[in-house]
Amino acid sequence: MRLKPIATVVNTVSEDIRDWDEVESRLVFEKEYVPGLYKLERFKHIWVIFGFHKKRGWSARVHPMHDPNRPLVGVFATRSPKRPNRLGLTLVELVSIRGNVVRVRGLDAYNGSPVWDIKPYEKEIVYDSQDRRKSR
Amino acid sequence: MRLKPIATVVNTVSEDIRDWDEVESRLVFEKEYVPGLYKLERFKHIWVIFGFHKKRGWSARVHPMHDPNRPLVGVFATRSPKRPNRLGLTLVELVSIRGNVVRVRGLDAYNGSPVWDIKPYEKEIVYDSQDRRKSR
Repeated sequence: MRLKPIATVVNTVSEDIRDWDEVESRLVFEKEYVPGLYKLERFKHIWVIFGFHKKRGWSARVHPMHDPNRPLVGVFATRSPKRPNRLGLTLVELVSIRGNVVRVRGLDAYNGSPVWDIKPYEKEIVYDSQDRRKSR
Repeated sequence: MRLKPIATVVNTVSEDIRDWDEVESRLVFEKEYVPGLYKLERFKHIWVIFGFHKKRGWSARVHPMHDPNRPLVGVFATRSPKRPNRLGLTLVELVSIRGNVVRVRGLDAYNGSPVWDIKPYEKEIVYDSQDRRKSR
């Protein structure tokens, strides 16, 4: 399937950024999709599905958190960008919506990343999940 | 960007299903991606990004939960499949992993849906979010 960007990420982060938590980004929407934002302001957090546009190729196994001291695990057991379809998924804080610009906080996407979709964060999907290894 | 399925959803649900919570599905992975599943069994829940393959086109505004009695809102303020890139996102329970088959519970995807990506559910991304309208 071919994806078309609904928006583009605009921010001023540098390549060597480590902590994305306080990063503010603008999602600049294509004009045709702006009516789809109606009532999105009800939500405090949204999911952003975006593209790792700087990466090419994928690795079956990666070091979690880019840390070479951590043992290799399958790429699907991580959030690594080195995945087959290079889809990023991050829960962010919704700061404001003005016209075609949605401001968010905490998105770990570089300037220029394409946005494929956004979805509201719904409280009911929260589980008290655990890393199984730790819970044994 | 062009997406390639990493897996295909196999289940026996009918078109008129209402409650997906207990539905078990198999994600049948393409052989080349099986090494990427290594250590995924550590997690009790995973995110599945899949395609609404039965839908065509999109609507800027939709009735939430397919309920015509609910006022129209922007499609990005809902999980409706009538979205520009037809990406579905659901948190599911990971039941088992055997070879190229990942069994999950609670995936609201019809038989034959393409799977674009899976990601581990990480506890730290849970917020105590609220529908703003209700919290006022």
